[in-house]
Amino acid sequence: MTEFIDKFSTLLKEKNSVLCVGLDPALPQQREENVIPSSYLKGVDENTARLNFCLDIIDQVKDYAIAAKPNQQYVIGFTKQQHQKLTKIIRDNGMLSILDYKLNDIGETIRSSIFHLAECGYDAITFNPLPGNLAEAVYLAHNYAKKIRGYELGIIVLTLMSNPEAVKYMKEASVHGVPLFLKIADDVKNSGADGCVVGATGHVTEDDIKNIRQRVGEDKVFLVPGVGMQRGDPRKVIKAAGKNVMINIGRSIVYSCNPRESAKHYCELFNRLRSVLC
Amino acid sequence: MTEFIDKFSTLLKEKNSVLCVGLDPALPQQREENVIPSSYLKGVDENTARLNFCLDIIDQVKDYAIAAKPNQQYVIGFTKQQHQKLTKIIRDNGMLSILDYKLNDIGETIRSSIFHLAECGYDAITFNPLPGNLAEAVYLAHNYAKKIRGYELGIIVLTLMSNPEAVKYMKEASVHGVPLFLKIADDVKNSGADGCVVGATGHVTEDDIKNIRQRVGEDKVFLVPGVGMQRGDPRKVIKAAGKNVMINIGRSIVYSCNPRESAKHYCELFNRLRSVLC
Repeated sequence: MTEFIDKFSTLLKEKNSVLCVGLDPALPQQREENVIPSSYLKGVDENTARLNFCLDIIDQVKDYAIAAKPNQQYVIGFTKQQHQKLTKIIRDNGMLSILDYKLNDIGETIRSSIFHLAECGYDAITFNPLPGNLAEAVYLAHNYAKKIRGYELGIIVLTLMSNPEAVKYMKEASVHGVPLFLKIADDVKNSGADGCVVGATGHVTEDDIKNIRQRVGEDKVFLVPGVGMQRGDPRKVIKAAGKNVMINIGRSIVYSCNPRESAKHYCELFNRLRSVLC
Repeated sequence: MTEFIDKFSTLLKEKNSVLCVGLDPALPQQREENVIPSSYLKGVDENTARLNFCLDIIDQVKDYAIAAKPNQQYVIGFTKQQHQKLTKIIRDNGMLSILDYKLNDIGETIRSSIFHLAECGYDAITFNPLPGNLAEAVYLAHNYAKKIRGYELGIIVLTLMSNPEAVKYMKEASVHGVPLFLKIADDVKNSGADGCVVGATGHVTEDDIKNIRQRVGEDKVFLVPGVGMQRGDPRKVIKAAGKNVMINIGRSIVYSCNPRESAKHYCELFNRLRSVLC
């Protein structure tokens, strides 16, 4: 069992929640809705505003979430110190910190990102398995990160996404007759990675999720986006993926009028389903 | 023709170089060799040290390079202002700025990264086509970026990488009988993307590069890593990819004892090959 899976299992018992809160701090000039209130920007730069928004959300959801997942594309420009502040507050509030980074690179370049992201303090990052080198990434994330800071960095691998185009690239694409997403699942198991990202909507069926689970083994943590605003079915996910699962909710919590109540709602909903289906 | 391809063509005539210099500012604590001199770290933080190192390299190679390519995994922690300073100096010295970012995401998340990276001032970024949504990324990079800052952000797509594991994921993987890298090439053409990343070493053959060129069209810019320390063959690349190509050299220039002379060497080597083979 990896250190990340071990931490997940301990927290799952302590907090009794599979809710992961997606932190997507969008600036008001980025889009029309689902943005951080302009009050956050008064008298501070956009990094501080985005960070403070995330810290306030963490304070609201801390009792109901097992993890917080900032998305790299919303925190571009954060300094290492700002990442460290964010991960410290997440950890101090009893949650796992996962940077949705979708790393994909090879050799020395992976090593460089592991160096910096380990120093940032994250418990895990997401990883895109194209064009390969997953085993190398897992080795570095577990061993090199541990050497740097005393604990492993978890690697959670994009295995089957639910955007419509993923059908072509991940399901219709095959290697010697096996759909690419199942080859990726095999690599997740063989590399000793910590978990999988598996979508919850659209073309992703209960059987797809079951097939992935069967290949990667019971221990891997499934990180599942697409429930909430994207209307994925948490029942399907929990039934097919089993116990070791985190369901990510982003906008439906962080941009709701009451993030605390919204987090409580999703935490309890998932727990009801788990008690019936797991 | 996209704005990025247009800028590339203009600069190619003006500077007569296809050399792209890869900026990988590794800190001394990251690895044993090929790191920035410790003198850069005296009295300043690691961001300033890494930025100053890049600026000095740009000053050394400016007469011989058509582009500079910072790699995201080496500049984690840079603020938007630091990215802006870097891209301004690259531009002021008559080069294209390409962030090797390997973006892969969908929908609002792509939009968020385009927002921030456009503000950072890059001419183009690299893009990983798994799990899809390339056309969406190109549309946003061209139109939304232009709305933000007045000019398009180019998208250069990982099409065939030369790491050994890319064989399984990009060549042996196929969609309805067509190797995945050629499906990606079709998507590069159909999406209106600006170029392709194509490896130069190992399993990538002259025929592979020719096949990609045939599918994407003559206009797309090929960005080719793997020459220099990784010993890829520039002759093969130039012969198969034709005129619109940038060959990336990283460590063999930036960590050489004389980056200016090393850049001159590669610039002239590539020009000799171009005059014979193109």
